[in-house]
Amino acid sequence: MSTSFFQIEEQWSFRILRMRSSDGMNRLTRCRVLALTAEIRRLAQEPLPLVITGNDRFFSAGAELGEIGALDGPAAYEFSKMGQTLMSEIECFPVAVYAAISGYCMGGGLDLALACRHRIASPTSVFGHRGAALGLITGWGGTQRLPRLIGKGHALAMFVAAAKVSAQRALDLRLVDALAPDPVALAGQQIMNRHLV
Amino acid sequence: MSTSFFQIEEQWSFRILRMRSSDGMNRLTRCRVLALTAEIRRLAQEPLPLVITGNDRFFSAGAELGEIGALDGPAAYEFSKMGQTLMSEIECFPVAVYAAISGYCMGGGLDLALACRHRIASPTSVFGHRGAALGLITGWGGTQRLPRLIGKGHALAMFVAAAKVSAQRALDLRLVDALAPDPVALAGQQIMNRHLV
Amino acid sequence: MSTSFFQIEEQWSFRILRMRSSDGMNRLTRCRVLALTAEIRRLAQEPLPLVITGNDRFFSAGAELGEIGALDGPAAYEFSKMGQTLMSEIECFPVAVYAAISGYCMGGGLDLALACRHRIASPTSVFGHRGAALGLITGWGGTQRLPRLIGKGHALAMFVAAAKVSAQRALDLRLVDALAPDPVALAGQQIMNRHLV
Repeated sequence: MSTSFFQIEEQWSFRILRMRSSDGMNRLTRCRVLALTAEIRRLAQEPLPLVITGNDRFFSAGAELGEIGALDGPAAYEFSKMGQTLMSEIECFPVAVYAAISGYCMGGGLDLALACRHRIASPTSVFGHRGAALGLITGWGGTQRLPRLIGKGHALAMFVAAAKVSAQRALDLRLVDALAPDPVALAGQQIMNRHLV
Repeated sequence: MSTSFFQIEEQWSFRILRMRSSDGMNRLTRCRVLALTAEIRRLAQEPLPLVITGNDRFFSAGAELGEIGALDGPAAYEFSKMGQTLMSEIECFPVAVYAAISGYCMGGGLDLALACRHRIASPTSVFGHRGAALGLITGWGGTQRLPRLIGKGHALAMFVAAAKVSAQRALDLRLVDALAPDPVALAGQQIMNRHLV
Repeated sequence: MSTSFFQIEEQWSFRILRMRSSDGMNRLTRCRVLALTAEIRRLAQEPLPLVITGNDRFFSAGAELGEIGALDGPAAYEFSKMGQTLMSEIECFPVAVYAAISGYCMGGGLDLALACRHRIASPTSVFGHRGAALGLITGWGGTQRLPRLIGKGHALAMFVAAAKVSAQRALDLRLVDALAPDPVALAGQQIMNRHLV
């Protein structure tokens, strides 16, 4: 399976969903969100552990703000709902889902990573969320999942300051489970260890 | 097809979708609702009459209140939407859907039974809906379908009192179409009689 | 693939989705919207250019107003969401989608045509949208897409006056791309020319 939004790489005992885009930013446009949702549903029919990843510079730059700005009320709300559906499908995936993060993991992209059961990041990855400033995007579950993961105080700071968080800081906050130069490789290794014994 | 939420049993000319869960209560959690929706959509591609059932003690205990309580506003609303989508998919299933009910059939579980075209219950089954007390759950269509089926007065009484209704009373109210010691067997028999002549 | 709502006709290098209904009006009922959404998703898995059409008298008469009237608030909102989802799936279809329009193309049916990339109409086709008068139906994206296509002034006039627009006027407004006695045939020809060179 290969579309303009992602490609699926079948490994021996798991799958890699590699997001891709012409500008490399893997923006979560409406059409990408729909395509990812359909693919997650399809993969869930014959589930294998799944590693979701991007490229070296971007896991995902998040939602497409230009697109959101062009939406009127109901359409913006629908877009928010679409994202929530994608996050729920990932969260409910019958077997483990790993986010393997290199580069920027921002906004809706961070929401997506938070919906995965495990997060492994490269030492140069960067995390951020515009949080409260953009009510819409935080409708994707990040405002719920982040506090549960790293505590209310840190999450609030991250949202309010819209601060960029380094990989090391993300590890300290337990926003990610581990750092590795090649996050996809470590995810694959953990899948072999944890799920296939 | 078999997941932790249900299994599909292929009969000669119809299918049984048997809900299951580790605690036997078949709670309509977010993930179960998503899994059931995906399965109903899948079955609709090559439709056969369908019997939805649970176990002897529970058809379904309804939504997972703990889960709902943990949701913030948008997420709770999304959960309500998910349930509505499941009910619509059942209601729009291209051929007949039967609910074969034993034991408790409560709240969202009753909504699900009401979305089916026919309901057959065991003499020991019990029905109930928390109704108005829980605005959220009644967002699954029960507040609409129940009055249409049993009349406004009876439905209101059932919601407001949150009373448990016995199988015999449910039959008198025409909330169910028939009682039978083995509801799945009678559903199967009715399918053979009605749909395959 | 053939249901009571549509049939799929496989051509050499594209597909025709022909809506059908017992009364010929191709009303966008809740069940039809769900069935179309499922089919568009299914076709997107192995995409070919798609021509959506109706019959000689009706592309589609739009949503089922009687059905909408019977819905309470949350259900009506869900219905609006369902339609938006269908429109988004069409808009995000990986290859070109053509609306081939004969006869009436009204309300939600016009929203559907507007979600397609191209519109070809017969000289006797008629367009209309109840617009502002029915907040609900315009929730399907027509109020956004129409102004983008034909300009704010013309769109407003069309909504407010709820005027019926002739095929020739629709062409002048660039609401449709071309007129042809057999819109499906021209769509097929354009697909051959544009997409298969």
